Amino acid sequence: MTQPKLVIVGSIGIDHIETPREKRENLLGGSASYACAAASFFTPPGMVGVVGDDFPAAFLDLYRKFSVDLAGLQQRKGRTFAWSGVYEENMDNRSTLETVLGVFETFQPDLPEAYVEAPYVFLGNMAPDLQLHVLNQMKAPAFVLADTMDLWINIARDKLVEVIGRVHMLTLNESEARLLTGAHNLLAAAGALLAMGPEYVLIKKGEHGSMLISRAGIYIQPAFPLASFEDPTGAGDTFAGALMGRIAENGAHDASAIRHAMVHGSVVASFGVESFSLDRLAALSRDEVDARVTELMDMTRV
Amino acid sequence: MTQPKLVIVGSIGIDHIETPREKRENLLGGSASYACAAASFFTPPGMVGVVGDDFPAAFLDLYRKFSVDLAGLQQRKGRTFAWSGVYEENMDNRSTLETVLGVFETFQPDLPEAYVEAPYVFLGNMAPDLQLHVLNQMKAPAFVLADTMDLWINIARDKLVEVIGRVHMLTLNESEARLLTGAHNLLAAAGALLAMGPEYVLIKKGEHGSMLISRAGIYIQPAFPLASFEDPTGAGDTFAGALMGRIAENGAHDASAIRHAMVHGSVVASFGVESFSLDRLAALSRDEVDARVTELMDMTRV
Repeated sequence: MTQPKLVIVGSIGIDHIETPREKRENLLGGSASYACAAASFFTPPGMVGVVGDDFPAAFLDLYRKFSVDLAGLQQRKGRTFAWSGVYEENMDNRSTLETVLGVFETFQPDLPEAYVEAPYVFLGNMAPDLQLHVLNQMKAPAFVLADTMDLWINIARDKLVEVIGRVHMLTLNESEARLLTGAHNLLAAAGALLAMGPEYVLIKKGEHGSMLISRAGIYIQPAFPLASFEDPTGAGDTFAGALMGRIAENGAHDASAIRHAMVHGSVVASFGVESFSLDRLAALSRDEVDARVTELMDMTRV
Repeated sequence: MTQPKLVIVGSIGIDHIETPREKRENLLGGSASYACAAASFFTPPGMVGVVGDDFPAAFLDLYRKFSVDLAGLQQRKGRTFAWSGVYEENMDNRSTLETVLGVFETFQPDLPEAYVEAPYVFLGNMAPDLQLHVLNQMKAPAFVLADTMDLWINIARDKLVEVIGRVHMLTLNESEARLLTGAHNLLAAAGALLAMGPEYVLIKKGEHGSMLISRAGIYIQPAFPLASFEDPTGAGDTFAGALMGRIAENGAHDASAIRHAMVHGSVVASFGVESFSLDRLAALSRDEVDARVTELMDMTRV
């Protein structure tokens, strides 16, 4: 039985996405899909998620093509989680048109025996209760990254704070950091989040990159500048998946390893948004990743 | 007669500024004031500008304290240029309440003889006609940086394009780059601007830093993250002044020298916004600048 070094838990969904230029339906999406595909450039991740009996076999084949271990993937009677969204002009904002929870509503992220000793874990955005359920099964993970969203800050704050107190790194976007802490200034917000327990807070700023804050200092990771992109959906999950994949590949999560992993996260995310769903990642090579890592590092070297 | 290595031409104004926390009147402002003060940490700049007969002697003393050469400063009968502005909640946007042109309306930036052979020039934001008037007086400057604003893009586009064709570096903010080129994507906009002639385009992104684009590549300069700030007025001019001051101090403007100078620009601008007007810069030491330069470089080093 395969024992993956990295376990990724999150949503698996069917996306219907409309951008100013294009409308696409029945795309493979969800935080676990994006994160596993991204991580797979560095280590074969173990995926924990749920799909319905309507889930296309072609998507399972795609996971396998990415060398994703599917021992933790549950298939249940019912509909797969689905999300419909529309991006505004310039893609700076998006609105959700419809969310169908389907089998995700009763999802229990039970881990295969082979997963519980994994050193690295990414808890994708989902109810804090489910994130805690995963943490309770893990033996002694070396490094856990958790993502969240405004919904959980609003309806499950106490449980979310409990999750934050039990992980090594929390990731969230600027507005979520402000909502969760009540601080407008990002350093103040990050300080309040560090006080909840994690060693690192990773604040996502979309096209402006991301910022890693710990008690030891700040690291600023610019995004790779793109001349064009098609679909920003899943960029944060792609970033997080590649970050954790690279950490798992290195087997190190000291400050320097995390900075290196963030460059890789930024680069894989920049490829991901170049097309819808996992299309670009499916055609991406490790050499292309490494070449763009070199390019991005050159763009920030003084 | 002093021959400054760096000549800075721009507005000198009396600012009335309201932020969500505070209202301050009769502050020393204007692009030339901010840029000269910032440049003075690296080289004594020659200032070219105009003030009215109402201009407080204390402000002239402050210029002298910054070692600004005032041979190019004209004093005319009439009111000094004045600007009143109010910042919105969170200081992300500002509105102009009133602009009094005063003596700036008939300003002719005539250079003292001692300035025309200066190797480095910063053309602060003003009518492109005035920027051209300065360029026509310079003998053979090694490196000229020009700033502009949406007003000139809208009412004096042809003259502005002429300026852009005659300078080495153009600086403007994101929305101005889009307005001037019609391209939403920043790389596309920068490409269109490079086609107008300059070697470098420096796009300012406020709290998200800046991006330098040339045919040879891209350099990304994050802003120094601040736990709090008081007044963002003049940050772009402070950045540009320190950038050009550092280049003049080094006597080099190759790609590596420009990257180093951008770090210094970012750092001095970060001090500048910590208080209103030139208050923080007036109390700032070169050691503090150098220490924060080291800090910022550590924040971007992988």
